[in-house]
Amino acid sequence: MNGNGAEEETAFEIGVVLPKSSGNYKHGDNKSSDCIEVLVEEFRKAGLIVDRVVGLQNEFIRLGSPLETLGKAAAELQLKKRTHIGVDLQFHWDEVEAFERQPDGSLFSWFERYCCYRHIIYGIVNTSTSTVVLKSDGIEAHWEPGKPLLRILESVGIVKEVFPVHDEKKRKQLLRSWALNWWDFTVQPIDDICNYYGTKIASYFAFLGMYTKWMLFPAAFGLTVQLVDFGSLQLFVLSAFFISIVSWAVLFLQFWKRKNSALLVRWQMNYPAGVDNGSRLLEGEWYQFQSPVELMKKQGAEKTDKPRGKEAFQREEWLGHFMRFRNDAMIILSIICLQLPFELAFAHVYEVLRSDISKFCLTAVYLFTIQYFNKIGGKISVKLVKYENNKNIERRADSWVYKVFGLYFMQSYIGIFYHALLHRNIMTLRQVLIQRLIISEVLENMLENSLPYLKYSFKKYRAVGNKRKREKGRPSEKTQYMSRVEKEYLKPDYSASIGEELEDGLFDDFLELALQFGMIMMFACVFPLGFAFATLNNITEIRTDALKLLAMLRRPIPRPDATIGAWLNIFQFLIVMSICTNCILLVCLYDRDGQWKISPGLAAILIMEHVLLLIKFVFSRIVPEEPAWIRANRMKNATHVHDMCSRQLLRSISGEKINAELKKDE
Amino acid sequence: MNGNGAEEETAFEIGVVLPKSSGNYKHGDNKSSDCIEVLVEEFRKAGLIVDRVVGLQNEFIRLGSPLETLGKAAAELQLKKRTHIGVDLQFHWDEVEAFERQPDGSLFSWFERYCCYRHIIYGIVNTSTSTVVLKSDGIEAHWEPGKPLLRILESVGIVKEVFPVHDEKKRKQLLRSWALNWWDFTVQPIDDICNYYGTKIASYFAFLGMYTKWMLFPAAFGLTVQLVDFGSLQLFVLSAFFISIVSWAVLFLQFWKRKNSALLVRWQMNYPAGVDNGSRLLEGEWYQFQSPVELMKKQGAEKTDKPRGKEAFQREEWLGHFMRFRNDAMIILSIICLQLPFELAFAHVYEVLRSDISKFCLTAVYLFTIQYFNKIGGKISVKLVKYENNKNIERRADSWVYKVFGLYFMQSYIGIFYHALLHRNIMTLRQVLIQRLIISEVLENMLENSLPYLKYSFKKYRAVGNKRKREKGRPSEKTQYMSRVEKEYLKPDYSASIGEELEDGLFDDFLELALQFGMIMMFACVFPLGFAFATLNNITEIRTDALKLLAMLRRPIPRPDATIGAWLNIFQFLIVMSICTNCILLVCLYDRDGQWKISPGLAAILIMEHVLLLIKFVFSRIVPEEPAWIRANRMKNATHVHDMCSRQLLRSISGEKINAELKKDE
Repeated sequence: MNGNGAEEETAFEIGVVLPKSSGNYKHGDNKSSDCIEVLVEEFRKAGLIVDRVVGLQNEFIRLGSPLETLGKAAAELQLKKRTHIGVDLQFHWDEVEAFERQPDGSLFSWFERYCCYRHIIYGIVNTSTSTVVLKSDGIEAHWEPGKPLLRILESVGIVKEVFPVHDEKKRKQLLRSWALNWWDFTVQPIDDICNYYGTKIASYFAFLGMYTKWMLFPAAFGLTVQLVDFGSLQLFVLSAFFISIVSWAVLFLQFWKRKNSALLVRWQMNYPAGVDNGSRLLEGEWYQFQSPVELMKKQGAEKTDKPRGKEAFQREEWLGHFMRFRNDAMIILSIICLQLPFELAFAHVYEVLRSDISKFCLTAVYLFTIQYFNKIGGKISVKLVKYENNKNIERRADSWVYKVFGLYFMQSYIGIFYHALLHRNIMTLRQVLIQRLIISEVLENMLENSLPYLKYSFKKYRAVGNKRKREKGRPSEKTQYMSRVEKEYLKPDYSASIGEELEDGLFDDFLELALQFGMIMMFACVFPLGFAFATLNNITEIRTDALKLLAMLRRPIPRPDATIGAWLNIFQFLIVMSICTNCILLVCLYDRDGQWKISPGLAAILIMEHVLLLIKFVFSRIVPEEPAWIRANRMKNATHVHDMCSRQLLRSISGEKINAELKKDE
Repeated sequence: MNGNGAEEETAFEIGVVLPKSSGNYKHGDNKSSDCIEVLVEEFRKAGLIVDRVVGLQNEFIRLGSPLETLGKAAAELQLKKRTHIGVDLQFHWDEVEAFERQPDGSLFSWFERYCCYRHIIYGIVNTSTSTVVLKSDGIEAHWEPGKPLLRILESVGIVKEVFPVHDEKKRKQLLRSWALNWWDFTVQPIDDICNYYGTKIASYFAFLGMYTKWMLFPAAFGLTVQLVDFGSLQLFVLSAFFISIVSWAVLFLQFWKRKNSALLVRWQMNYPAGVDNGSRLLEGEWYQFQSPVELMKKQGAEKTDKPRGKEAFQREEWLGHFMRFRNDAMIILSIICLQLPFELAFAHVYEVLRSDISKFCLTAVYLFTIQYFNKIGGKISVKLVKYENNKNIERRADSWVYKVFGLYFMQSYIGIFYHALLHRNIMTLRQVLIQRLIISEVLENMLENSLPYLKYSFKKYRAVGNKRKREKGRPSEKTQYMSRVEKEYLKPDYSASIGEELEDGLFDDFLELALQFGMIMMFACVFPLGFAFATLNNITEIRTDALKLLAMLRRPIPRPDATIGAWLNIFQFLIVMSICTNCILLVCLYDRDGQWKISPGLAAILIMEHVLLLIKFVFSRIVPEEPAWIRANRMKNATHVHDMCSRQLLRSISGEKINAELKKDE
């Protein structure tokens, strides 16, 4: 009754890596027992389904779980789940019928299952009264009573890693329906993605799909503007193009917000409570640190009724703002004072140099330096963010993204602007833009996909090599058969190139998208063709990113968020920037002689800029971020609950109050 | 137990006006009965306390109510009230202890009491089976079974009016502590005002007080800038002044939003549910019309679960946006195409005319014309708003305010701008500004207070005159003693000068404030002294408005809202406008020769403009609209409720689901 087809064929979803026992382990030692066997036994006792795989170098335990085990763990975790009346209530296994199912019919989402798995396997403690001595490959671990087993094994290095493993059946299905389904263009099985990879990654692909689909309009318009010669009307047509592009971008983002809130409802996320809830479950997962302010907040939350609590909140709120403001100011100042001169110097030297060889050398040095710069910038930002009072891990990641994006923004655009304003030659600028767009996108797409494969191949090669070396002379099995789980263990993580502590690989994917968006938007007037390039690139991007996730990388750890987070504001910022830069470019185009005299044309451009800025902020108000049906649903749910238990609540409240008064009288 | 001092001394809060029986009414007619006596009897039966007052021209029934009668009416109305655990639940008289009290200790707010009174007196129906014939002064009314008494009497003209009357004790107290308490400057007893006049008027005075208090900083700065001669640094100082003024204004509005949300908590309003709730109670009160879209919405709300409901919502949402967009576009176009040429023509003709007499005549004609124009504009806007799909009456009023403000905005500033740009002479502009500010504010303050008094005096004079005429020759009592309730009946309403259907007198008060704010902000660079003038004016305004409300006018009908509504956005808009206009003025000041050449100075002003626009939108993000303690409280309350009845809810949900499945199987 409690479960359907998809859940009953239990899939293995978690892998635990242990060193391969070398065989010289002496059995019969009474006081100590084999570590791996104890672990397997304990996993079985906890209700998990265990599969032992012996690999070339390591031994693997694959874990699956029947629905009931997960459900009980969820109840212990006090997980909140969406019920049929639309409110989130604490999960109870007995009342499982009251909770809504995922779009694919399963009870728990991948994120919830992951939390439950972790709760189960890290919750195994020694219930006996005596210390158990565990041995593996010469290492000895003392499992004291009441201590969690896995933590101890991790600390002495017996358990090398715990990671989510691919579910082969679903992976192959997704590979067919998503990654290799090139003819669908922008259409993707978003629900399946959400189900397999969690909400955060699904929201990236939903965004990418919608972005690509919407891009078709400016791509067509841009092609027309580029290819047709309008003669003397050219400037006028460019202005019209520019205005429609800005309106397009503003509308796109507003409609994305609407779509995102519809997705949140579909995925049963109650934003922002969903993220808070998720963060609570993941506590100490990604981040070992707990900011001191957060602790204060927790204490404060209990005394909000008293004025002291309110003051504490105020103080803490302003302290948080101040810290955030200070950090942002530091980053902005260092970008302007350190990075801007460096970039300008590079652009200038590049311009001055004559020989191609020295240009090439300079570029190589530059590329090497900025790699290093970015790493340092990312690390500094991570440190700064730690001192901020962000509500949860996702907000912390957002704060970091803003800071790091400032760096990349300067890096990507300042050189082009230098070219544009120095030469005031549209043709050269266009060439530079085409070069940058094509090179960066083609290169990045190739790197993105080949690098993980190369890494994996190298690791695999080394593993097989080691195995051969060890087995030299021994007449054991010659076939280098490698189990699937071992292959996955050798695959690289889905991790960010910088700032791994706060972000995963989505950072790189979003960064690519945002830099592309900035490039085509900010130079829309001189390079209308950019949109067409970007469209082609994004159609490829959807499938290559899918392929990367499905075939090249380990299954990523799910994140509780279901929005695109900081990137939305970054896109908004790029729109505003693009209004200003396009106006500057239009002035350059209009005022070819460089007289800089305010004539009707220049004044018209200035007025247009202000009108566009107005449009930007008025449009955002006109299109509401939340569709009316979602709001209506929410209101209905809230009143529903209150009506359902109104009388009971009232009685208990007045009861409480009378009790309190009686106590006071005593 | 259920009530405290303030409530037990029941005050009379509602007055009903009836014609004075002329005495020639024949008693003993069996089939019909005296209307007034029946009415009084029915009021008594409904649990109200009734006081009959015979005035000079009319007879008055004053109504008070014991707490219990109000409480029962509130329960019948299904009023939602804040409970001690912070959520709004339906009121039940038995569980009165569970509900939170107002800051002054009374159970119901003035708005809630007003709704209850209306529910009681309009809820009196004929419970017998036969029609009762009521007679008064020759008019006969047939009270059929099941029909509400008061509506029938209103329709035949026996009940002339039902209006809220002043509570003498509280009024005198407020007069002492508020209106005549000049030495408190900006400090006002906001809780008492809220208690006596309702949340909407209290939020106006809270805003006015905070605005005046914050104004002290720019007033002091402006005085310094005006009085000290900075020589060649003048332009630099003006720019600094301008930047600090814009930052001040942005911060002020953000802090007002914070204060407003704190006030909402204090006044137990759950925005926007509070307004929705209130609107429901007031249904058909201010507005007889019910938009067809609203009806659709209500039907739609019941089928949100089905996809059809979702589609209906989408359709209705976009239809609403389209209607609103169309209306706004119509208004903006007609302002630009009709009003702008008219205003420019007036400004130009005024400039061209030489003789003072013709100037005076022109101004008189102009003033007369714009009065007429505004009335027409207001009426057209009311008609347009009726076709919009606004959620409730307050949103409808907001939509109207935006439209009408456009009119006033053009009217107030376009002439000044014409002067500024035509003459480019700062001294003349300054003179015009001083004239406008002083004349408009002094005149308006005087008119605002004297007009109601004159109206009242005239009505009173006429009433006494009529009485004398009627009693001529008769040797009856000579003393023209006038009861308090009759005096109040003769006092004018607190109503808007235009668009009475959607707004009350607050519109005029807010309009004055907004026009003043626009005047001092938009011309801050050329007239820094304006802030000092405005401060003085606002300190007076607080007390004169209080005096007007307490002494000159009838007690206003309370409104369910507790924010300043549309005016907040209008203030925001004025800040953005002021950034642009001040930059233009600075350019004029800088570029005295009118060369309009882009030089470093001009470019600097342009960059400053962009930076300020950025500040405007970044500051609004930095300072959150809702203090952290309020958000934390709300979250706590929501989880509190769910936790309290989590299990019970779950059981009922799974029960429902099983029932539904059983039904399906059948």
